Amino acid sequence: MEVFYAREFQGGVCRLDEEESAHCVRVLRHREGDEIFVIDGEGTCYTCRLLDASPKGATAEIVRVEPDWGAHPYRLRLAVCPTKNLDRFEWFAEKATELGLDRLSPVIGDHSERRVFKTERMRRILLSASKQSLKGAIPQLDEPQTVRALIASLAGDEGCLKLIACCFEGEVPRLSVNEALAQAEGKEIVVLIGPEGDFSREEAALAVAAGFLPVHLGPSRLRTETAALTAAEAVYLHYI
Amino acid sequence: MEVFYAREFQGGVCRLDEEESAHCVRVLRHREGDEIFVIDGEGTCYTCRLLDASPKGATAEIVRVEPDWGAHPYRLRLAVCPTKNLDRFEWFAEKATELGLDRLSPVIGDHSERRVFKTERMRRILLSASKQSLKGAIPQLDEPQTVRALIASLAGDEGCLKLIACCFEGEVPRLSVNEALAQAEGKEIVVLIGPEGDFSREEAALAVAAGFLPVHLGPSRLRTETAALTAAEAVYLHYI
Repeated sequence: MEVFYAREFQGGVCRLDEEESAHCVRVLRHREGDEIFVIDGEGTCYTCRLLDASPKGATAEIVRVEPDWGAHPYRLRLAVCPTKNLDRFEWFAEKATELGLDRLSPVIGDHSERRVFKTERMRRILLSASKQSLKGAIPQLDEPQTVRALIASLAGDEGCLKLIACCFEGEVPRLSVNEALAQAEGKEIVVLIGPEGDFSREEAALAVAAGFLPVHLGPSRLRTETAALTAAEAVYLHYI
Repeated sequence: MEVFYAREFQGGVCRLDEEESAHCVRVLRHREGDEIFVIDGEGTCYTCRLLDASPKGATAEIVRVEPDWGAHPYRLRLAVCPTKNLDRFEWFAEKATELGLDRLSPVIGDHSERRVFKTERMRRILLSASKQSLKGAIPQLDEPQTVRALIASLAGDEGCLKLIACCFEGEVPRLSVNEALAQAEGKEIVVLIGPEGDFSREEAALAVAAGFLPVHLGPSRLRTETAALTAAEAVYLHYI
């Protein structure tokens, strides 16, 4: 099942942009009258019938509307330090989207080796992973910010369950991620994942002061991207 | 922390093969007297002191022995159909090893697009993932076999909990993977994951007849490699 993405839905008609039109008409050879599926990236899937198979701007008549298409029963925001090797961060993002992710916040920590992150390529990865896994909603992607800024922006916010996966064994008492998720009670879940060099002690202290619960992801030594995916899996599996 | 792998441990001395010796001496520039960590791939880590820093065959004196090094509290065997795109299968194997995997059985299903799988490259991936995640045991890698042969080999085996993740929604009653894991009771857990085109109905019927429990991995539509990793995550998270 091939899914397209569009932003223009007006008067019962949806219009694909040039890239999606070319893919629909040139690559997949759809013709007038064909049924296609179009997501709006906000959660809705529109079943449409092609009116104009133009490779520059195809238009289609909306025949069925499915809100919350491929939705998951929780709200998850992952704030993750991009890895030095970007491929690893990109596959984590693809997999987390397949499972069910609402918002991705790239953050730069005191110990981050990668201090610059460009969002354009990631935007395309999140879009294609959403289409491939049949989800109407594309995860929101934030502009990069520092770990400290992310923590400050959530300080005292009681509307979400805030978790920080840090590795200071023995120093800070930590719940397992499963124990912590039992406290979610329907709130948005925010998980903060540090860089290869872990968080600095100041960052961890700031997070705890801001109401983040320190959690561990089990006994194995996980790479940053595996830890981030494991957090996404823990939430996904908690709700199945 | 850099970990080496060796097969020769005799009379309190361990000997690295040529590849590991070159890495230890040429790349990492270790010298006589340096402390190095060597795993035997069976679960033990040896702390050693270099006696002869030869790049062809370095030898080291064993000063400390740690059995069950980086061990996990369960036994997991994953029987997975290799994906058409091998990269995807390889990253799943790397990640599953980081989490904790005991045995990987590549299987070929009736609907597998990839019908040939060579194990040599995968052996190296499992070794490097084990070293990188500080585990003394390297997952056992089986030669490829058909899904039907794997099922037959486990028919009536009560010593393990056998699960098959299949997608025939509505047709077969399925437990969630979490519900099924509650029945493990310390037994080895075997999870069978099908190819992109899912199992054939005959394969699923054979599995059920052989005592496999049909399970689902939640509502999301997961790629084969994501499904396989999610099974590994479910087991890992069940025991943390």
